Amino acid sequence: MSIDKFFNPENIAVIGASRSKGSIGYSILKNLKESFKGELFAVNPNAEEILGYKSYGSVKDIPEQVEQAVVALPPKIANKAVEQCVEEGVSAVTVVTAGYKEAGEEGRKREEELKEIVKDTDTDLLGPNCLGIWDAYSGVDTLFLPTGKIQKPDKGDIALISQSGSVGSSLLDVGAEKGIGFSRFVSYGNQAVLSETDILEWLAEDSQTSAIAVYMEGAKNARRFYKKAKELSLDKPITLLKAGKFKSGMEAASSHTGSLAGSYQVYNGAFKQAGVVEAKTIEELFDLSKILAYQEPMEKGKIAVVTNGGGYGVISSDAVESRDMELANLAPVTIKKIKEVLPNFANVTNPVDIVGDADSERYRKVLEAIEEDPEVDAVLAITLLQTAPMEPKIVEYLEEFNENTDQAVAGCMVGGKYTSRHMKKMESSNFPVFPNPERAIRALEGLFQYGTWKSDRR
Amino acid sequence: MSIDKFFNPENIAVIGASRSKGSIGYSILKNLKESFKGELFAVNPNAEEILGYKSYGSVKDIPEQVEQAVVALPPKIANKAVEQCVEEGVSAVTVVTAGYKEAGEEGRKREEELKEIVKDTDTDLLGPNCLGIWDAYSGVDTLFLPTGKIQKPDKGDIALISQSGSVGSSLLDVGAEKGIGFSRFVSYGNQAVLSETDILEWLAEDSQTSAIAVYMEGAKNARRFYKKAKELSLDKPITLLKAGKFKSGMEAASSHTGSLAGSYQVYNGAFKQAGVVEAKTIEELFDLSKILAYQEPMEKGKIAVVTNGGGYGVISSDAVESRDMELANLAPVTIKKIKEVLPNFANVTNPVDIVGDADSERYRKVLEAIEEDPEVDAVLAITLLQTAPMEPKIVEYLEEFNENTDQAVAGCMVGGKYTSRHMKKMESSNFPVFPNPERAIRALEGLFQYGTWKSDRR
Repeated sequence: MSIDKFFNPENIAVIGASRSKGSIGYSILKNLKESFKGELFAVNPNAEEILGYKSYGSVKDIPEQVEQAVVALPPKIANKAVEQCVEEGVSAVTVVTAGYKEAGEEGRKREEELKEIVKDTDTDLLGPNCLGIWDAYSGVDTLFLPTGKIQKPDKGDIALISQSGSVGSSLLDVGAEKGIGFSRFVSYGNQAVLSETDILEWLAEDSQTSAIAVYMEGAKNARRFYKKAKELSLDKPITLLKAGKFKSGMEAASSHTGSLAGSYQVYNGAFKQAGVVEAKTIEELFDLSKILAYQEPMEKGKIAVVTNGGGYGVISSDAVESRDMELANLAPVTIKKIKEVLPNFANVTNPVDIVGDADSERYRKVLEAIEEDPEVDAVLAITLLQTAPMEPKIVEYLEEFNENTDQAVAGCMVGGKYTSRHMKKMESSNFPVFPNPERAIRALEGLFQYGTWKSDRR
Repeated sequence: MSIDKFFNPENIAVIGASRSKGSIGYSILKNLKESFKGELFAVNPNAEEILGYKSYGSVKDIPEQVEQAVVALPPKIANKAVEQCVEEGVSAVTVVTAGYKEAGEEGRKREEELKEIVKDTDTDLLGPNCLGIWDAYSGVDTLFLPTGKIQKPDKGDIALISQSGSVGSSLLDVGAEKGIGFSRFVSYGNQAVLSETDILEWLAEDSQTSAIAVYMEGAKNARRFYKKAKELSLDKPITLLKAGKFKSGMEAASSHTGSLAGSYQVYNGAFKQAGVVEAKTIEELFDLSKILAYQEPMEKGKIAVVTNGGGYGVISSDAVESRDMELANLAPVTIKKIKEVLPNFANVTNPVDIVGDADSERYRKVLEAIEEDPEVDAVLAITLLQTAPMEPKIVEYLEEFNENTDQAVAGCMVGGKYTSRHMKKMESSNFPVFPNPERAIRALEGLFQYGTWKSDRR
């Protein structure tokens, strides 16, 4: 499939490469130089050498067969460059240039022309009006954002595809800071040719990706998206944020990516049937994707909460009940085991408040008591690291528990610098951890929705 | 008022001071030594000197009149120490010890006895089962959490009062990392004597506090709280998170702080009438308090959105509409001014998408165009710092705009390390900035709720 060449090309030509710092053509070549493992070509008729690469007059002058080209030229000349790529048989062309369908009558004509150029050829086209691709494994990186202002995340199992370049890239940046890993990122813009569904199909076969997050304003072909999503989500959970839900948002979407956002009710119903877990906010897009990537789906919605801060137990109880799930009734044997560990005045109920003087050993023993309780299909482990007795060793214990149990596990820590460091460490080892119980419970609800849908499909 | 001595005492005696690191009595004395400006006394009959302070056998042995005492003793001997404080005429006594009303029959008796001890005396009592007080201005700090594991925030205008010590202290820690400043923090625990309402009354007169955030499981006297809150919130907005809303949460609250959480419907209605802005999550507790502390209430709910990332404009439009507010219809003169600044293909609508190639000058000019538009009563300024042309100077421009305009202003930035650094800087200068548009719009909704309530009361 030629779309593979967007992610794993042997070489890339940057058409519109530039020596002027801060320009798009400079940023792309520089980023690729730092991360891409294959060969790079610079194309710019007005330069001899850029960033150490010989600069060619056009893609036609490159002696080797070019597999991928990134077009970073002004709109008036971008189509011409694509035409040359087609003539040269370049498999994958990304047009990052804006000024197409999203930009008035002239732009619409330009986009029609672009479609004609690649129609019935061997060239696949991503964009225009996009950031293109960042790939954690191959090092493809067409994001023209200066290093230093944006971090790229570590390798992970989540693929992010986004109709908006700014939403997608800023989320990558957030992910990098929090320690959340990604496999691939695709900003697909106006989808003149390649659509979100084409990318979804490729990701379904991608062994590095176990969950998919989507930011969408309007599907290119909603029916086709629905069918594919329904098929694929059985194996790989899909989390989706649909923007342009209401009148004003739909108008904004139309001038942003030229999308006809379409009726939200229709989308909403289709997502439910297709097993797509819908994120209501960008925070949820993160939270749901990471828990769906790394934890088993829940089928009963019965949660045990463990905490060394009583107030957070109360907050969690409210959150569970407001989300149509239940606090599990712990089995008598579980309660007995927990009683042996807690101070005698402590109440053994669920939420299990192991009290502020708990150390990490007490926490571990309580987790072990819950681990085999058949009444529990998910555990929310709230750990306040600020107390004197709670040693950092707790992070290892939580990770051991996560490995040993069949229950779904969500971590929760609330705090500043010291706490954030430990949270990042946990995220980096693919343990989903949330900055408050409400977000953790909302994420578990996503696991429950997905698990229920999946078991109904069986 | 003797309650003043909890915040501004001349001296503090730490009863149960200890030399063993990691103990409560050690942490409290050590923290006070680092931050408190007045005199300190250690009380421990088994030591001669602790952390450089002479150790007294009991509070009775201290030659000076003690104004505040912190009791950090095991439950069995804590009441005795309080009795001695009463005999010595100590104005303010904080009992951090747990094992009272929240801990079974024996604890309940102990709490009754404690109440009897201070009844009709000149001693006021905070707690038991609490962390006590942290005061940004006087340096009072009875939080027994090790430095290094928790950061204390900078001075600011928000007072936080919390029935749960762990919720309160972890939120302080989060605030410190984000750059959000606080004036006072009170963890009031079981409220055997002093209640949340007493503290509220004191904060109403406190010149350092302009907004109050409350975490509450159950009010000590709900009717009195309602009356006071209604009176006080005209001057100082109150944001409140009520935990223990549903059956399971109420049960958890009862074993946590011994609170009878009471019917949530009743609370909810009372909050609305009293002008208390209710936070549904701990994230909202932060977001609402900070915007209410630093921005003017809104009366029309008409918002202008400015963004250099189109997708975030679409997301914001959805958020505004889902929150019963409106995108303002910009005045023709505003649109004309903006048109002069934007590239000609850009659409001038609200949300105003100033396009990804915008620099900070373009952003500033668009803000200036909106600044005097009478249709707009709040501005959401979304700034993606990751793009090459967006210089950090934008932070100054946003601050200037915030100072010059009568409109309410919420900032929004989405990103990692580089972005977070600028967000923290903005927060430190009391400019509320949010990590995504949805949270910013929710905060603006709070300003609108409060503004509407206030104008109805006039």
